[in-house]
Amino acid sequence: MRNNTLLTDLYQLTMAQGYFEKEKCEEAVFDLFYRRNPCGHGYSIFAGLNQVIEFIENINYSEEDLEYLAEQGFNKGFLDYLRDFEFEGDITAVPEGSVVFPHEPLIKVKAPVLQAQLLETSLLNIVNHQSLIATKAARIATAAKDRSVLEFGLRRSHGPDAGYYGARAAVIGGCEGTSNVLAGKDFGVKISGTHAHSWVMTFDTELEAFRTYARNFPNSCILLVDTYDTLESGVPNAIKVFEELQEKGIDPDLYGIRLDSGDLAYLSKEARKMLDEAGFEDAVIAASSSLDEEIITSLDMQDDEIDVFGVGTKLITSSSCPAFGAVYKLSSYAGRPKIKISDNVEKITNPGDKNLLRIYENKDRKIIADMMTLQEESFSEKEELELFDPRDTWKTTSLASESYKIRRMHEQIYSRGEMVYDLPEVKEIKEYCQSEKETLWEEYKRLINPHIMKVNLSHNLYNLKQKLLQKNGVKA
Amino acid sequence: MRNNTLLTDLYQLTMAQGYFEKEKCEEAVFDLFYRRNPCGHGYSIFAGLNQVIEFIENINYSEEDLEYLAEQGFNKGFLDYLRDFEFEGDITAVPEGSVVFPHEPLIKVKAPVLQAQLLETSLLNIVNHQSLIATKAARIATAAKDRSVLEFGLRRSHGPDAGYYGARAAVIGGCEGTSNVLAGKDFGVKISGTHAHSWVMTFDTELEAFRTYARNFPNSCILLVDTYDTLESGVPNAIKVFEELQEKGIDPDLYGIRLDSGDLAYLSKEARKMLDEAGFEDAVIAASSSLDEEIITSLDMQDDEIDVFGVGTKLITSSSCPAFGAVYKLSSYAGRPKIKISDNVEKITNPGDKNLLRIYENKDRKIIADMMTLQEESFSEKEELELFDPRDTWKTTSLASESYKIRRMHEQIYSRGEMVYDLPEVKEIKEYCQSEKETLWEEYKRLINPHIMKVNLSHNLYNLKQKLLQKNGVKA
Repeated sequence: MRNNTLLTDLYQLTMAQGYFEKEKCEEAVFDLFYRRNPCGHGYSIFAGLNQVIEFIENINYSEEDLEYLAEQGFNKGFLDYLRDFEFEGDITAVPEGSVVFPHEPLIKVKAPVLQAQLLETSLLNIVNHQSLIATKAARIATAAKDRSVLEFGLRRSHGPDAGYYGARAAVIGGCEGTSNVLAGKDFGVKISGTHAHSWVMTFDTELEAFRTYARNFPNSCILLVDTYDTLESGVPNAIKVFEELQEKGIDPDLYGIRLDSGDLAYLSKEARKMLDEAGFEDAVIAASSSLDEEIITSLDMQDDEIDVFGVGTKLITSSSCPAFGAVYKLSSYAGRPKIKISDNVEKITNPGDKNLLRIYENKDRKIIADMMTLQEESFSEKEELELFDPRDTWKTTSLASESYKIRRMHEQIYSRGEMVYDLPEVKEIKEYCQSEKETLWEEYKRLINPHIMKVNLSHNLYNLKQKLLQKNGVKA
Repeated sequence: MRNNTLLTDLYQLTMAQGYFEKEKCEEAVFDLFYRRNPCGHGYSIFAGLNQVIEFIENINYSEEDLEYLAEQGFNKGFLDYLRDFEFEGDITAVPEGSVVFPHEPLIKVKAPVLQAQLLETSLLNIVNHQSLIATKAARIATAAKDRSVLEFGLRRSHGPDAGYYGARAAVIGGCEGTSNVLAGKDFGVKISGTHAHSWVMTFDTELEAFRTYARNFPNSCILLVDTYDTLESGVPNAIKVFEELQEKGIDPDLYGIRLDSGDLAYLSKEARKMLDEAGFEDAVIAASSSLDEEIITSLDMQDDEIDVFGVGTKLITSSSCPAFGAVYKLSSYAGRPKIKISDNVEKITNPGDKNLLRIYENKDRKIIADMMTLQEESFSEKEELELFDPRDTWKTTSLASESYKIRRMHEQIYSRGEMVYDLPEVKEIKEYCQSEKETLWEEYKRLINPHIMKVNLSHNLYNLKQKLLQKNGVKA
């Protein structure tokens, strides 16, 4: 692994030196949160936590790093501090794969301000990337309904890591597998792939190319049928090869065709008929070609016959919304709650050391609302709970006692610098994410104009926010 | 470094095993090219070649990799071959930082088909990413005219590599520097950065925050002035601190303010007046906040007073066009030219082992056109040259002898498996890229509806293409 300790913005280091030089470096609380769901989605999937932990565990300023920083004008005392840097703070976070909503603290870092500041850029980099791709994958999986989606985007991702961690995030968010071999190996997820047009083109005939492929991979034989002419040549040749396998008594685990161009709805329906007529009702039809949630929805509307969607560029770059936009903001310093004000109401932060609670309906375990509270507040399910809208405060909802369940969303990741969290496997995160999506009513999952989940503030947090806004001369 | 040898699509390995099992694995030629300039730009910047070479030099299937592949069903003979894999082919490419156009081979790989195939995914991944960001940076630098652009996007990039190599590509394409410390260290490019809002918020007053920062960094003192109120508080406090530096006899190398929100055109003009009136005519005004080429063009139209643009999310994700779309297509196999046909004319490939020539006007060294030829063709500047449009073949241009210069764009990178290229430093690539842009007339550089550069085919290549199209039953 490249040592990514210096993979940060210069201003984190200049500020850190500034804090180091101050007489006192007090404890700060930073919230990592985002402001808008990508692509107008109703929720996001939080991803990247394991890599955040890996980053923190591997922080190590090498002598070469320190030499470079000295050349940039950093002073010796500060560089000596970095040489022995160890994170000493607390971190809590929502579990990876959680369904999350705007303005909620996804990660909370409580540490000496110098240390908390030095984590900012990497935490944002990792979480912004993986949450973006996991959320896009969730959208695409929703469009595909119960059909498989495979991640095929490595060649178009933004460099090696974007393909590697992007495949991980896509699988967490809803893809069944990936074409990415290294991601498959390192994250224990399913890999798939067959052959390209170039394979067919190196043979004298398409039939010979298919035969050779089938001889090599009789048990997993998906043939790409659009090199020359899908319906005139590709599908008939594939059928011939499937018949030959049958004659040899071979019963493949997986076989079928892949369409990679043209009118996928039409071609899939025609190919389905041809395969069925030849007795290959269980042959799979896979399709790829600039797919995303919109095109899959359109294919579905046309009653396509595609069983598996291979999704590349538009997933791995989240092309319709290529940035997640999470930020990392100071919410408390030296025990005093802090607020960042802005002309843009959406950009005003929620002050103080906070908790994130999720309120489920008791009956069917669906989410009613989320609520941010101050750390010291406690709530009992045995009491009535009043929820109110932080923008339109006259809109209130009362939940009868025992009619709801409260869940504290954050888990302890670091305690006084010690990592105290059991890192789950990607498979577990994927399953958890699936169960998380099931806590949403359909109205929150639709792809266009979904219901907006209420993210409430407790009365105490609301009052604190108003007080700080007034102190800063902002009219409520 | 993580071993990225397996960072590929599974089908590259299934095809490779297929080729391994065939009696003969013949020599193939693959072209890496793209079909459209991103964002409607008039040209692209080719970037990532050094990382392509690094990848090839580091190909190494570990025992752990081979074990994993064995579990996936690959056979022992093939895995033994991979264990000792060494690339044995030839590679030529245009130099990094070159101005390039659609359909031109940027990299040409000539190798046993198995080996050429195994390079595909990584070459595309690397070149697609860096060329995308370099091209976007060139657009933004064009909008900024002679003003500095700094790359600030690490926190929003698609994972660590996207920030690291993205900063590299942005500097090649036109940025003066980056906030990215590790990219600065490893690629020898300028880094910059000062402080965030959180710095100001940890002090009792903004003035105290600015004073402390200035005490720490008296020589490079850019103060962020929008934490509370830019014109009422931020700029006056910055001026007070600059006066205090002056009183102490300190004459900073660089000082000024940064605007990060609000109406940047208005605020920069007001701030400029206030700074000038206080006698700080050389104080720099930097600005950031969702900038891209469109917003910079708009600011410029309003006669803003910004000296330095910090560009983040929209550059590092190339948000308006987040994929480059390069492909890697077979153009020759076993000495026979190959063509990939398609209903979509844009997707029909150019067959055969080719050269890429660039034709400059002798007088002012501007590009007249590019021309793809067959490898064996030669041209002399002493003769008249006829250019004709490959789509509208009746459109021809004759260049008088001695009126033009021909440049062969490809350089030899690998020769029979040996790397024979001197890798340039990023600084040199950046300078070369700047000189490349100067070979374009302004009409090709404008951001909207630029002139389309002619990429011609030689008569021989054109005729070969027609012949193969007819052979495949496609009407010309």
